[in-house]
Amino acid sequence: MGLRRVVAALGLALPLAGPASATADETPLRWTELGPGVWEATAGATERLTLLGAAAEPPRTEALRSISAAPFPFGPDEAAARIAGGKVALRFPLALEEEIYGLGVDFKSLRRTGSAVRLHVDHWGGVPGRTHAPVPLYISSRGYGVLVDSARYVDFYVGTAVRLQARQKPPVVDRTTGGKAWSAQPRSDSVEALVPAPGVRVLVFGGPTPLDAVRRYNLWSGGGALPPKWGLGFMTRTPTSYSAADALAEVAEFRRRGIPLDMLGLEPGWHDHAYPCSFEWDRGRFPDPAGFLAGLKASHVRANLWFNPYVSPTAPLHARLLPYAGSHLVWNGIVPDYSLEEARTVFAEHLLRKVVSLSPSVGGFKVDEVDGYDRWLWPDLAVFPSGHDAEQLRQTYGLLVQRLLFDMFRRANRRTLGQVRGTNAGASPFPFVIYNDNYAFDEYIAAVANSAFAGVLWSPEVRSGDAQDMLRRVQAVCFSPLALFNGWATSSKLWTHAAVADDIRAAIQLRLRLLPYWYTAFAQYHYAGTPVVRAMPLVSGFELRPSRESGRLAEVLDQYMVGDALLVAPIAPGAKGRTVALPAGKWFDFYTGRLVGEGHTVVELTPPLSQMPLLVRDGSLVPLVGGRQWAPSPDEVLPLEVRHYGLGPATMELYDDDGETFDYQRGEHSWTRLEVTRDGEGRWRGTVRPDPNGKAWRYRDVAWRFMTPP
Amino acid sequence: MGLRRVVAALGLALPLAGPASATADETPLRWTELGPGVWEATAGATERLTLLGAAAEPPRTEALRSISAAPFPFGPDEAAARIAGGKVALRFPLALEEEIYGLGVDFKSLRRTGSAVRLHVDHWGGVPGRTHAPVPLYISSRGYGVLVDSARYVDFYVGTAVRLQARQKPPVVDRTTGGKAWSAQPRSDSVEALVPAPGVRVLVFGGPTPLDAVRRYNLWSGGGALPPKWGLGFMTRTPTSYSAADALAEVAEFRRRGIPLDMLGLEPGWHDHAYPCSFEWDRGRFPDPAGFLAGLKASHVRANLWFNPYVSPTAPLHARLLPYAGSHLVWNGIVPDYSLEEARTVFAEHLLRKVVSLSPSVGGFKVDEVDGYDRWLWPDLAVFPSGHDAEQLRQTYGLLVQRLLFDMFRRANRRTLGQVRGTNAGASPFPFVIYNDNYAFDEYIAAVANSAFAGVLWSPEVRSGDAQDMLRRVQAVCFSPLALFNGWATSSKLWTHAAVADDIRAAIQLRLRLLPYWYTAFAQYHYAGTPVVRAMPLVSGFELRPSRESGRLAEVLDQYMVGDALLVAPIAPGAKGRTVALPAGKWFDFYTGRLVGEGHTVVELTPPLSQMPLLVRDGSLVPLVGGRQWAPSPDEVLPLEVRHYGLGPATMELYDDDGETFDYQRGEHSWTRLEVTRDGEGRWRGTVRPDPNGKAWRYRDVAWRFMTPP
Repeated sequence: MGLRRVVAALGLALPLAGPASATADETPLRWTELGPGVWEATAGATERLTLLGAAAEPPRTEALRSISAAPFPFGPDEAAARIAGGKVALRFPLALEEEIYGLGVDFKSLRRTGSAVRLHVDHWGGVPGRTHAPVPLYISSRGYGVLVDSARYVDFYVGTAVRLQARQKPPVVDRTTGGKAWSAQPRSDSVEALVPAPGVRVLVFGGPTPLDAVRRYNLWSGGGALPPKWGLGFMTRTPTSYSAADALAEVAEFRRRGIPLDMLGLEPGWHDHAYPCSFEWDRGRFPDPAGFLAGLKASHVRANLWFNPYVSPTAPLHARLLPYAGSHLVWNGIVPDYSLEEARTVFAEHLLRKVVSLSPSVGGFKVDEVDGYDRWLWPDLAVFPSGHDAEQLRQTYGLLVQRLLFDMFRRANRRTLGQVRGTNAGASPFPFVIYNDNYAFDEYIAAVANSAFAGVLWSPEVRSGDAQDMLRRVQAVCFSPLALFNGWATSSKLWTHAAVADDIRAAIQLRLRLLPYWYTAFAQYHYAGTPVVRAMPLVSGFELRPSRESGRLAEVLDQYMVGDALLVAPIAPGAKGRTVALPAGKWFDFYTGRLVGEGHTVVELTPPLSQMPLLVRDGSLVPLVGGRQWAPSPDEVLPLEVRHYGLGPATMELYDDDGETFDYQRGEHSWTRLEVTRDGEGRWRGTVRPDPNGKAWRYRDVAWRFMTPP
Repeated sequence: MGLRRVVAALGLALPLAGPASATADETPLRWTELGPGVWEATAGATERLTLLGAAAEPPRTEALRSISAAPFPFGPDEAAARIAGGKVALRFPLALEEEIYGLGVDFKSLRRTGSAVRLHVDHWGGVPGRTHAPVPLYISSRGYGVLVDSARYVDFYVGTAVRLQARQKPPVVDRTTGGKAWSAQPRSDSVEALVPAPGVRVLVFGGPTPLDAVRRYNLWSGGGALPPKWGLGFMTRTPTSYSAADALAEVAEFRRRGIPLDMLGLEPGWHDHAYPCSFEWDRGRFPDPAGFLAGLKASHVRANLWFNPYVSPTAPLHARLLPYAGSHLVWNGIVPDYSLEEARTVFAEHLLRKVVSLSPSVGGFKVDEVDGYDRWLWPDLAVFPSGHDAEQLRQTYGLLVQRLLFDMFRRANRRTLGQVRGTNAGASPFPFVIYNDNYAFDEYIAAVANSAFAGVLWSPEVRSGDAQDMLRRVQAVCFSPLALFNGWATSSKLWTHAAVADDIRAAIQLRLRLLPYWYTAFAQYHYAGTPVVRAMPLVSGFELRPSRESGRLAEVLDQYMVGDALLVAPIAPGAKGRTVALPAGKWFDFYTGRLVGEGHTVVELTPPLSQMPLLVRDGSLVPLVGGRQWAPSPDEVLPLEVRHYGLGPATMELYDDDGETFDYQRGEHSWTRLEVTRDGEGRWRGTVRPDPNGKAWRYRDVAWRFMTPP
């Protein structure tokens, strides 16, 4: 630098070129097509443990072929990698008007453009990137997705840092005189990512639409989860110190009050030691586990059992898992290294023997604390017997526990639906719904919507509150992937507030009546990768764009679609009404069939307290069954009501299977075509076209209801 | 693992031993004494750039000898390191009742015990560890300090994660039945740290008291900053679009109203381009910079000039610094690699030529945005011509800019006082005060206190508010290291609210009157390492301990001592009064001299709005000068008032020097002993013992005031 110092001391200008070291060592990523519209590139020496590798479900390559072909979204040299200091820096192109979504389930925002996040499995605590589902996948408004398949804390910079060597730079504006022309965040032409690993694999998912990119990601991850039918019913969780008798009495109370119930959650008290856990029944509260579970079965209710996966030194299981323990404890319990197949086998075998094999009424588990605060879980300097480090275990722990539970139930040919508090990329096929302790209504709704960009399912919480609060939360949770009341730490019940008890019951009954609709939405998730819940930027015809100037219309976080027909617009506790931003076309009221508004407008809705706004897309069908208290069993055949909404003709492919086993994977399922067209005299006419492969559905006596007045 | 799988499948227990890999590769740290009570250990291959290396001030080894000897605080094998995956894991012992402070200036808490933090230069945004001063130094209640001298994002786990192999483990309690015996955070026996680098140097500072450990840290860093006397006066910052004429009119208004003023802050508008900066005077607003600065000089006011260190492409300086630019821009400006001496030289030479050399009234700079959000500054994947990476530059950037400015002024034998928004370990000698945009009163006070554990200075902000808000904030800021009003983005003035204008003036006048006291407190910081502001856990006789059960008395964040005598207890805007927790001994009211209370009690104070509670330790002296509008010049000799408080005799070593140059480093300074004892008849008598080295002080006509009634 001697010359430079002399030149500088003389005040001379050097040529206007950036330092050679800045980007000269970048190498363009080279892409290989792995499947239809799915491309792979690697940089450096990839690691043994990745997110998709931890989830380990095979891609659904065949299903990918049914999506319209999409070209590779970048130019040949537009994406590049640089390896230095044991880390990989990645760069992807970003166009000026492009918006980026995803990069983990955030509670405050769908958009990621303009943000810098470090993805890290954690409780949501307001720090972007630290979330229960820090999935390193982003979805572009231009219709493609990028997954950085690393089990590391990956940093993403989404249009934030302009490179010295960028071809297009934002305007240079003086802040003192520039007024609004000056920007605190000049927009860059790149999405950049830093992977703290010697190498990494990147996947690109083509479109052509953003929804198609999501579908490709979900299908490449193995297709979306298909829960059992009973998993689409209602769940209640019992107070932690409840005994078997208490729990059965609670079920009886639901039945007595006519509130549907399919799942009963047992909290820490089923263990004889919890936090850390023993995975042994407490013989005081549960003297006869098999008898208790038989009682649930007789009531058509499945048990869901809480645990955190840290094993108490008081438990017989402790000695068997100790050889696989990491160097640090969580609540005094060992942290088994579930990246080791042996550890997964020991744990699954124990759960099978002590719990799952006791009765078919064991429906699943609630996997707690795999997301916890850094001050609760193992430190990043912990070591594990597999040789994977603490960071990798942190990023995959929830995935690995889901995998072992899913595998265990699948081997028994019993479907499961569970809850989990921490997950990551590759989780699409796992039938687990994320939850947490946050209780902010608006953030819950935003998270439900945002989960669409992450290949995960999310449910809000209902615990306690005043009458209106409870009702509004129940209405919202019944239009989320898992409808539940979480009574583990409260004396509140769904019937605590008499004034709203009927409305609460009605909201849950509607959930059950819509079971055919929900089940088909999940089948679309499983077979086609289409998310059940769709954030507005994934909805065709939704064109409200962020306005950088006014801040108005900036994001629509508080509404989303469920399936192809229903636009869900929860009303927050305390609010009298709300606005709804309508996508293209006409939208109709679910309850009355009347026109609510036209696309690209914002309508104001003030429904009665008993109703949450539900809008139906023009030319849609919504199938319902009659009112009932639990999901149908495989041998039940039910009358079907099909509602038609709007002014246009409609078709729907209604899915069905036995609802309980994995036999659907061997072809035991049906897609029945429902169709409404006008007859020669202009009257609506509904037709049912059975599955072309001759597979049966479990409905009969189709009643068509044409909801929209002519 | 084949055997293990077989064993597991059979349900047999393996031997109760942890995995050999967990800690077998730990190596005890080996300690070398570098200076009196300062020990060093290294692990692995240390990096070129460290925090103390970036700050680069030599240790004050001689001064360290004056602290009582302290033994090395750990047992021989109690601290250990493990190197794996290119990172160093460190482990230090932690006793059951030990409390840990420090690890960066937090706004919410002094205590670190039970927390996990990643230290990262950033705006304070509520995330522990992300702060303007993430100094990786901790101070133990047992009287020692540990510095992890790494320019990396270091993770600390302070008693959070119990190791499987720990000798002492917390009790195992069932949460369902254990009640309060169950802990969400079982206490571990270690402080652990993860340094993402191949090697690291660790320093241990002995006590015997926690304050002694802080003193050793400050002295090892080069001793605390000694500002010019005018730096202890009052500063006002002007609106950003002010012209030279506007600024001089503002000064005249202060003089007209009798509000003391020593420093005038010029905001972005002095540049002809800002955000990024040009470092060229705007010839519209400042047509004659030298004339403007001469006008300030005539008014006894110093200029302080704002910048952020990112250079605009519109600026002549741009071409000269471009060879040293990093790969990414900040607000379109280049980010010079100030770890390179050449870059520091170019920048300092420019500032000297364009600004500092114009007039002795240029007092310093305000260094903004060296702390900014990740979405504003360069990404962690940026590269720099020195080869230091983006993380290292982030952790040291504020240090490096302080160093180049301090060096520049020191070479001119002119003292400076500046403001800075991001700093780190080693900054003790730099005469810069940290600030930010947070405006929470309680958090500001907590940060002022917490800065004592980090070797930094912090000032709250006063910007705008209602009458009481402005007054309370001015009262508080006048008892912080830098007393200033920040009017850069408001039309509010200190005289906006007529109802409190006199009280605001009085608060600032008191600041000026106490100048001899403040100056001696800073001299203690400089020569003995004793922090000017002392958080309560550093105050001798303060024994309120955190009560884990009740949460009461948990922390005392809202009061602190300034110097040896004054206990400062700011009252928050809107509050009528407050409680003060008293250390051992008797405490007296500063204004009246009357007894307020005895040690180890909590007193409730409701002073008039015009007063902020100031308590004086029994047997203390507080020296004051008469009311004045600006700090004295080197040739002024002032009458001195010395107030005695309490029932006991008192002594004080009063410091003095010219207040403007670095001649004090060549011995041109004095320590004058003030002493109050009782004479033969029990009456107080004050004596002055001149500096034994014959150096002069700049006071005369000492008037003794015995404040406490007999």
